[in-house]
Amino acid sequence: MSAGPLDGLTVLEVSSFVAAPLGGLTLAQLGADVIRIDPVGGAADQGRWPLSPSGTSLFWTGLNKGKRSVTVSFRAPEGRQIIADLVRASGAGGGVVLTNAVGQAWLSYPELARIRPDLIHLQILGYRDGRAAVDYTVNAETGFPLVTGPDTLEGPVNHVLPAWDVACGLYAAVGLLAAERRRARSGAGSQISLALADVAMAVAGNLGLLAEAQLGQDRPRIGNHLFGGLARDFRTADGQRIMLVALTRRHFADLGRVTGLADTFAELERLLGADFSTDGDRFRHREVITALLEPWIAVRPLAEIEREFAGTSVLWSRYRKFTEIDLSGDPLLAQISQPGVGSLLAPASPLVVEGAADVRPAPALGTDTGPVLTGLLGLTEAEVSSLAERGIIGLPS
Amino acid sequence: MSAGPLDGLTVLEVSSFVAAPLGGLTLAQLGADVIRIDPVGGAADQGRWPLSPSGTSLFWTGLNKGKRSVTVSFRAPEGRQIIADLVRASGAGGGVVLTNAVGQAWLSYPELARIRPDLIHLQILGYRDGRAAVDYTVNAETGFPLVTGPDTLEGPVNHVLPAWDVACGLYAAVGLLAAERRRARSGAGSQISLALADVAMAVAGNLGLLAEAQLGQDRPRIGNHLFGGLARDFRTADGQRIMLVALTRRHFADLGRVTGLADTFAELERLLGADFSTDGDRFRHREVITALLEPWIAVRPLAEIEREFAGTSVLWSRYRKFTEIDLSGDPLLAQISQPGVGSLLAPASPLVVEGAADVRPAPALGTDTGPVLTGLLGLTEAEVSSLAERGIIGLPS
Repeated sequence: MSAGPLDGLTVLEVSSFVAAPLGGLTLAQLGADVIRIDPVGGAADQGRWPLSPSGTSLFWTGLNKGKRSVTVSFRAPEGRQIIADLVRASGAGGGVVLTNAVGQAWLSYPELARIRPDLIHLQILGYRDGRAAVDYTVNAETGFPLVTGPDTLEGPVNHVLPAWDVACGLYAAVGLLAAERRRARSGAGSQISLALADVAMAVAGNLGLLAEAQLGQDRPRIGNHLFGGLARDFRTADGQRIMLVALTRRHFADLGRVTGLADTFAELERLLGADFSTDGDRFRHREVITALLEPWIAVRPLAEIEREFAGTSVLWSRYRKFTEIDLSGDPLLAQISQPGVGSLLAPASPLVVEGAADVRPAPALGTDTGPVLTGLLGLTEAEVSSLAERGIIGLPS
Repeated sequence: MSAGPLDGLTVLEVSSFVAAPLGGLTLAQLGADVIRIDPVGGAADQGRWPLSPSGTSLFWTGLNKGKRSVTVSFRAPEGRQIIADLVRASGAGGGVVLTNAVGQAWLSYPELARIRPDLIHLQILGYRDGRAAVDYTVNAETGFPLVTGPDTLEGPVNHVLPAWDVACGLYAAVGLLAAERRRARSGAGSQISLALADVAMAVAGNLGLLAEAQLGQDRPRIGNHLFGGLARDFRTADGQRIMLVALTRRHFADLGRVTGLADTFAELERLLGADFSTDGDRFRHREVITALLEPWIAVRPLAEIEREFAGTSVLWSRYRKFTEIDLSGDPLLAQISQPGVGSLLAPASPLVVEGAADVRPAPALGTDTGPVLTGLLGLTEAEVSSLAERGIIGLPS
């Protein structure tokens, strides 16, 4: 059995909310020792909804699984010194700093690089110039909310998944590992910055949306249709909703065969002068194609549709509520005992690789302050107690 | 000037659509040499919309910027042998294989690891068991579409951003770099698999949504409100839409001060027995709080709102269409000359780090077949010509 991919990597994470914590979680689940450092009492995300009946944040515990939790006073010079000491100590094992705390000079690259010139430091920002932004304001600026949802709507539709935060956190993990590779080869540290707004613009650009806009093409709002392809939601005879996708010529041919509409589609192609083997023409004529599919689906219950599509290339899924997802037996998930919540199934890394970490619960706030300060910094138990008494550090309550 | 973070890393990418190409792009933008290998004539995503007026895919060119393009016949044994030879040759410089091609035994880890036991191979799948799935079917299964959009809707609202594909591509980049770190330390290769459906479930779990469901709490559909906080869209006097977010106590205090509603909010707290300094109570009473804010915003044009919020902590943004985004002067973007499209602004990596690659256009399909085969494999020009004449490889048209 080989070591975990990130065995020996120490991540000091001074973070809150989604992006930075998800970056740290991603590294923790591949074997890194991630130490989340919070102010005594917790950061602004400590009580973020959803909550367990006892008031523990399911959001916080979800994003901080398998990390160690250290709390120190960010205001007291002694507290800041402890963080600087951790940077010094963790560097020996190839440590990195990941933070979304802005405007704290003592946590900045220039300050901490004085301690370790080979420091790797990744700073998450709202905008590149340091102005604040969050997923929901960045999303408004991207263009996506005005093309999401039914084409009868006029206003914006916000996403519920904080997709930019998620992408930002994963970019952060990429950036830290890329810099770590360089340091392992050359000894050089890295100052990295990553703005949430840049993440959104980069992704929109990578998907072709900014190029489209520059060519003066206004992306239309097309409801649940897939732009440039054939896909839509349908309602079954028993009131279920399904998503149906025919991305390729083969998918579409199978769809025609199963539904008995192949001849109708062929006749329609002749009438319209279209070629439904191309995704462009399937998209241009999506309304008539899906109008033909609709009654076939509307008279069949879900179970029958499942039988009909079985063994074909047609891509489809039933829409589920979160509470309808069958979690049992999913190999991604493992049962953990989460302090403040109880026993629950929680996800491992989706990256299936030898040496990836088991699913571990999130720590209770401050659980590891003592062990980290005695272990990494060599403090005595008496020194730890004295710091706690003076409010410089926090211990678990 | 230090080398790029991923200088010397060769990525062989056999891919299509979003996830795997975005993974490769992410590495290319940090300095890796990413060789996208397609079947002669291109993969299924070659003509994916949106298109330029000349018919070039803005989607494909967006996701394959700064890569090299090699085309070979995937059916001819000689073509497959060329890919195996590239795996052997690229390994010396620390090569990795990234693919979403399923059911091609000759491209699989067991087959290619016979050539290089230290191979790093990441396979993107739909489901972990190999069944096909795409972003749009996976999304239907997550629960998000049934809680997105106006609370008056009954059916699902699909996202337009393929958020799961984006997350999957970034996870792939993380997985390859993590494995590369292990190989650099121990010499061991890695077989990695990554299922799109697992990515979606892992993210839903990390954000607390699966825990919430396990506790029997049904996430409500709340339109453009932010779950567990205070945030919503509003319409201004001049018909603009803005997103307004008060995540913290400070944001909310500033919002009360600017709008002159602070006393009203305080009186409301007393009447309701609520504490608006907590995000839980701001969320519980979101309807009445936003109903009070609405008229203040509705009588003010955007420019006045901008002045009022300037210098406060209040987070807000105007909703823009893609065509309304001002790209000029954005330091994320650089002008490139994209074959088939022309001159346009395209994004670099959002990771700002020394040695990150400049923004480079996507290659025309097959542009690098000759140079890669002569350079990496040592073929002669005559051998390349002969392979092209026999249809084993493709050259640029």
